[in-house]
Amino acid sequence: MEGKQLDKHLKRIGEDIWLIEDDRDNLKLTYRGKEIISSKKSPFQQVDIVDLYDFGKCLVLDGVVQTTVLDGYIYNEMISHIPIVTHDYPRDVLIIGGGDCGAANEVLKYEEVQSVDVVEIDEVVVKECIEHLPEISDTVPLDERVNFIFTDGVEYVKNCEKRYDVIIIDSSDPVGPAVQLFSEDFYKDVKKCLKEDGIMVCQSQSPIFNKEILRNTYKILNEYYPIVRVYKAVVPSYPGGMWSFTLASLKYDPVNADTSKLKLNTLYVNREIFEACFKLPNIVKECLIEAANK
Amino acid sequence: MEGKQLDKHLKRIGEDIWLIEDDRDNLKLTYRGKEIISSKKSPFQQVDIVDLYDFGKCLVLDGVVQTTVLDGYIYNEMISHIPIVTHDYPRDVLIIGGGDCGAANEVLKYEEVQSVDVVEIDEVVVKECIEHLPEISDTVPLDERVNFIFTDGVEYVKNCEKRYDVIIIDSSDPVGPAVQLFSEDFYKDVKKCLKEDGIMVCQSQSPIFNKEILRNTYKILNEYYPIVRVYKAVVPSYPGGMWSFTLASLKYDPVNADTSKLKLNTLYVNREIFEACFKLPNIVKECLIEAANK
Repeated sequence: MEGKQLDKHLKRIGEDIWLIEDDRDNLKLTYRGKEIISSKKSPFQQVDIVDLYDFGKCLVLDGVVQTTVLDGYIYNEMISHIPIVTHDYPRDVLIIGGGDCGAANEVLKYEEVQSVDVVEIDEVVVKECIEHLPEISDTVPLDERVNFIFTDGVEYVKNCEKRYDVIIIDSSDPVGPAVQLFSEDFYKDVKKCLKEDGIMVCQSQSPIFNKEILRNTYKILNEYYPIVRVYKAVVPSYPGGMWSFTLASLKYDPVNADTSKLKLNTLYVNREIFEACFKLPNIVKECLIEAANK
Repeated sequence: MEGKQLDKHLKRIGEDIWLIEDDRDNLKLTYRGKEIISSKKSPFQQVDIVDLYDFGKCLVLDGVVQTTVLDGYIYNEMISHIPIVTHDYPRDVLIIGGGDCGAANEVLKYEEVQSVDVVEIDEVVVKECIEHLPEISDTVPLDERVNFIFTDGVEYVKNCEKRYDVIIIDSSDPVGPAVQLFSEDFYKDVKKCLKEDGIMVCQSQSPIFNKEILRNTYKILNEYYPIVRVYKAVVPSYPGGMWSFTLASLKYDPVNADTSKLKLNTLYVNREIFEACFKLPNIVKECLIEAANK
């Protein structure tokens, strides 16, 4: 394509912006956009807010779309409401990553939640999302229950003395520094930060394209927690569409949760989806059986 | 990208083949492939079988990926097993489109099915898929219950005198001639071809990107059938990931189906998924309420 290269991933051709997502070896996505709303270089990465034709406004880190106004709520609702509703008394919540503030915004819908600590390495991401993506960050900047801690999540859980009811690991893909957020050492530290009836949840990637991550996550968590449940959701803007989440719990089982507590001001999750999301396709079930026998 | 242009959509760069899917205005997908297995020009379209790195072998029509070995089974199982299991006596089945033979292969798993008429406009597609995609077409070429009719599906149902128990509309996207497969006149003709306790099912596009199609399909079918149910599945290689299917029935309700009849030699569908697929996210429920009030 001819046109003016704006940075490594963004190009202007006539009236249009084109975002070229080329982090994967075998599949490149090229999105047509209306405008670049903001562009910042943080100490960690290139942080862009771009308005795309098909997905609306979105957060782009180093040229990779992270969350979009069109479908970000699906991921954010599923990673938040499921553990919060599963826990009988979710007072103290820790979110690792989640700089877009979407998961925090969902957690805050529950009045019984008293504190939400968001540990995000990159302050620029949080600032940009609060300023430019209010559809996603919503009430977060105004809610006094939220406390931002700008540091590395791996270091935070290693040294943390606070104990949480629910820990949400809202990590990016397991490349670069995020690899550690999928390691056994990290999960051990996370468990240490939970109260004795605590719950943790993490995104465990696409069960179609990245079975190995789901298999490993499931295997490790089974060694440390009596209850481990995998659930699924669709995330249209992620390659693979079907996304897996793994919930590990010291006491409460989501399969027996009182779903009447579920907040109804949502776009995706409802009581039926809460129950249906634990029903897994054969290929995913087989993957979990393999993990158990590994 | 530099390299040798093989046709409008295929390029060779070094050892690699690149397939550039540019039928959408706002999102272009570029797939890295190992080889072009076959390339034919039919009277209707360019028919390529390409081996892609991430998706395996796939059928490409006019440069658009239609079905892949990696995930084609999800769509094919969901469009077939749900109506077949819902019907008490599914003897005569009509598939409109479905030239990849994947839906037919799923239908044939049921011994009670006595005939499967596959009405596909393009004979080249069927020949190519039988020769090069046996993972998808599987037992179809050897099964005497299958009868191929190479003609336009719209014309076929207009003039057809045979009556079917189940009609599966396995259409491509609603562009070009396929638009008619989403029209009220077509659905009226389809109903005429059903026995008095018949069931029809169609793919009704992504409820995220193409709500209008789902809304219209649901509205039209509700005018002609006492029972209309929308269900969902994930189709990783389709943009939008979440896919909707609409089932319209003259007697049997899938919500009361005897799912113990479901065949177990599947990769995606099982009894739990059968039940869970009718549980819809809020955004899809709202779309159906809008349709009902239109």
